[in-house]
Amino acid sequence: MDSPSPDAAAAGRRHYFAFLPSLPLRLRKADEPLSAAVTPRSNHRLQAPVAKASEKVPTRSKPSRRGSLIGFAGLSWELLIVGSLALNLVAISLFASPSLDEDGAPPLDFDAEASVAASAALVGSPHSEGRDEEISVSSTSGSRPTSKDAVINLDHGDPTMYKSFWKRMGHRGDITIAGWQGISYFSDVTNLCWFLEPEFDHEIRRLHRLVGNAVADGHFVVVGTGSTQLFQAALYALSPPDTPHPLSVVSAAPYYSSYPAVTDYLRSGLYRWAGDASAFKGNNIYIELVCSPNNPDGSIREAVLKSENGTIIHDLAYYWPQYTPITHAEDHDIMLFTVSKTTGHAGSRLGWALVKDKDVAKRMIKFVELNSIGVSKDSQFRAAKILKAISDGYELPNPKNKYKLFDFGHLLMSVRWKRLREAVKVSGIFSLPEFQSSYCTFTGKRAETYPAFAWLKCEKEGVEDCESFLRSHKILSRNGKHFGAARKYVRISMLDRDETFELFIERLSSLT
Amino acid sequence: MDSPSPDAAAAGRRHYFAFLPSLPLRLRKADEPLSAAVTPRSNHRLQAPVAKASEKVPTRSKPSRRGSLIGFAGLSWELLIVGSLALNLVAISLFASPSLDEDGAPPLDFDAEASVAASAALVGSPHSEGRDEEISVSSTSGSRPTSKDAVINLDHGDPTMYKSFWKRMGHRGDITIAGWQGISYFSDVTNLCWFLEPEFDHEIRRLHRLVGNAVADGHFVVVGTGSTQLFQAALYALSPPDTPHPLSVVSAAPYYSSYPAVTDYLRSGLYRWAGDASAFKGNNIYIELVCSPNNPDGSIREAVLKSENGTIIHDLAYYWPQYTPITHAEDHDIMLFTVSKTTGHAGSRLGWALVKDKDVAKRMIKFVELNSIGVSKDSQFRAAKILKAISDGYELPNPKNKYKLFDFGHLLMSVRWKRLREAVKVSGIFSLPEFQSSYCTFTGKRAETYPAFAWLKCEKEGVEDCESFLRSHKILSRNGKHFGAARKYVRISMLDRDETFELFIERLSSLT
Repeated sequence: MDSPSPDAAAAGRRHYFAFLPSLPLRLRKADEPLSAAVTPRSNHRLQAPVAKASEKVPTRSKPSRRGSLIGFAGLSWELLIVGSLALNLVAISLFASPSLDEDGAPPLDFDAEASVAASAALVGSPHSEGRDEEISVSSTSGSRPTSKDAVINLDHGDPTMYKSFWKRMGHRGDITIAGWQGISYFSDVTNLCWFLEPEFDHEIRRLHRLVGNAVADGHFVVVGTGSTQLFQAALYALSPPDTPHPLSVVSAAPYYSSYPAVTDYLRSGLYRWAGDASAFKGNNIYIELVCSPNNPDGSIREAVLKSENGTIIHDLAYYWPQYTPITHAEDHDIMLFTVSKTTGHAGSRLGWALVKDKDVAKRMIKFVELNSIGVSKDSQFRAAKILKAISDGYELPNPKNKYKLFDFGHLLMSVRWKRLREAVKVSGIFSLPEFQSSYCTFTGKRAETYPAFAWLKCEKEGVEDCESFLRSHKILSRNGKHFGAARKYVRISMLDRDETFELFIERLSSLT
Repeated sequence: MDSPSPDAAAAGRRHYFAFLPSLPLRLRKADEPLSAAVTPRSNHRLQAPVAKASEKVPTRSKPSRRGSLIGFAGLSWELLIVGSLALNLVAISLFASPSLDEDGAPPLDFDAEASVAASAALVGSPHSEGRDEEISVSSTSGSRPTSKDAVINLDHGDPTMYKSFWKRMGHRGDITIAGWQGISYFSDVTNLCWFLEPEFDHEIRRLHRLVGNAVADGHFVVVGTGSTQLFQAALYALSPPDTPHPLSVVSAAPYYSSYPAVTDYLRSGLYRWAGDASAFKGNNIYIELVCSPNNPDGSIREAVLKSENGTIIHDLAYYWPQYTPITHAEDHDIMLFTVSKTTGHAGSRLGWALVKDKDVAKRMIKFVELNSIGVSKDSQFRAAKILKAISDGYELPNPKNKYKLFDFGHLLMSVRWKRLREAVKVSGIFSLPEFQSSYCTFTGKRAETYPAFAWLKCEKEGVEDCESFLRSHKILSRNGKHFGAARKYVRISMLDRDETFELFIERLSSLT
């Protein structure tokens, strides 16, 4: 660990309200016109951060085969300025006028009981012993901090950072559904997956072709109520209905904390959680879950077990260009994706699986039939429009590069990871995983890895439980033990709103 | 069984294209102006059917406490004429111009493989031995018949008859969702059910107050991906996590065919299907499912087991005024409802539970978290708008009574049941359940029962399997055996499109 530079520490605290710490944005005084707060004071200062940001994301020298895609640096100006302006407005409205949020609607109304619960959340861990469930909701979940010393909840991977992108998209992502549309259970009975909306199917395949992250051709698309439902559908599909003993479900630690709970909550006779794949012994039939890039640590993964007794489910929720370089098109038997981590629309509860084998696809479809008789058409109608807007952003003329989701996401993640690594340096009591850069076939450039979660390790002497330590500083994270790892680790969401992230960075920097 | 009158038989065949058999509608000739086909030839003929329709639905003499609700007969004119006009147009476009459906979009494109499957569906039963799953999809599912001798699929309870109502509602049921809305997993963390949209919660409670079918006050609302997910959530909530043996899940036969399959598909160690409640013996802990009005037979039900060892789940999917008189507000511990049977929006996959006990509600919410991390916000946004449009139809000024869903549904069901009972008489080889009329607190009048399904019994000598018999005449229904009943019974959906229903009536009338 390098010792933190005094300058970086000061910068971390000084620019509390600014989205980008080295941008010349500051809190507007009450009597100052808005433009004064965002107008650069000098060309020199305005240009500096862009040059810095582009250090890790070199400009491209030749046009992409994907149309008008330009280098991230090329569109930095607009994004940075618009983003910072937006954040300043948000920060101002948040801290100066707490009765308005960025939608112009009142913020979540924390009643007395909820406030008590919020305080209680700091005493009792939301992930106390014996509770391994994925979601542990407190009154701070999904909401923005209400003061500078508020609880910062980064336990969930709530992708609210994408909201500003979709606001910037104007009406491109809007959809109107008429009262008479989508009445029937059935979407397309000529498709094996009869509850899959054809337009959503089309846009999924189009997006995979655009990004090049997975081979959709030759695969069946199975839609699910989020990839959580599809994960269970895949377990069901891979387990023989007459199996005398439950199949062992394993994943190399650290594994996604939801896998054990979702596998075991119904005590199914078909499958059972069997822990860390690396420790798996015996000749029993198993299912290995491979999450790549991995939740929680962002590593690129392959199956660790190579036996013929096993089948593999590839969870590719984070294999998108904003998080990791796209090095090749994955082409596995079962690949899971989710709208929430692709576009940010977690509330739509929508995912899809690319499935090679027809019988496996049929069994997965049967699971979704039995579990929920299909999947919301409203979410599918909407997601088709959202995916279309993303692909259009790359494939239609877009001279100002305003509508490129992956560019937005990659830039924002690069800034956040830079801020996080700086804060970790300043604090001196944490460490983070390091990643190699790789050539990204989507951007046509070398790119860094910016995972959706930070897998933070507490290096401070005497601290054995990082989650408790952070909780004592009103930062809610997820304990490493839920991922089959040591308590010195926590998982922290990198996808929350700007102001939540900035407050987190400031507080983390102050810990010693 | 009365022997059929020759006139009724003739009428059943003669008015093949007409929505209401005794309305003076006929197929428009190619060179005839549209108005000629729907203009009544005489006042006498035009008034007759309304008088007939109103025999079973007497007019009200005093204004309802629910605002401008008037008797069904009072709005018959408009509904009948508009409905018949719509159906004639549909029928014309269907049979004269098969490339257009009622939406102006091409009908489902049956490719070669699908056509083969359609033929195959007539050979192999979609519910063959050993398959007890709820949905058995064939190429005819959810689609309209393509010719007069086409397969008629009434196996599923696809509520497509509601589409014409929502078309008539104009933009009242439309919703626009902006690209940036509904991003977060969380809807309202101050609510125990943190993924329940407040507006949907509000409109659910408002609708129950309007209709008076269930007590929502003092109950928690738990939203689910259809009532199918909530049914499983309730099983999970009522089963002790550490139970050494699975709880017995029972329901009095004939029970909803989906209950056994949905209870058992994961071979849960928490609960297990144990069949007909009336045959249940022993002192084991059990869960009794009470569906009232019952799917498949429309009967009003109470629990048959009264032991203290049991808990009850009340499935009230069909306890709405279009299907049955509302005699009182149900007030049970767990009551399940579904948007699909209330408003027709099956494609939205949305249901709700009213739950009295906080700990049971918490466990149900935990199930939905683990199963799908909440429920589509898009569906909830939309359903809130849809329920609002229904309540507004009764509570806002509505002088032409155009926008009253339950009036529409009740009238249409009354006409369909009249047609069905006539066809059964004409055929002479079937029987149907009979129902007592009751005073409906919602309409303030006596009302008949018009179940969403017809529980049809084949009385023909030598026919032991009614489903096979009907299948040989290209009518797909669900075999009584799936409901724990004899094969002489089948369940037939009464909620399909007008033209499918009319084709069914014509074909049923012709069977001897």
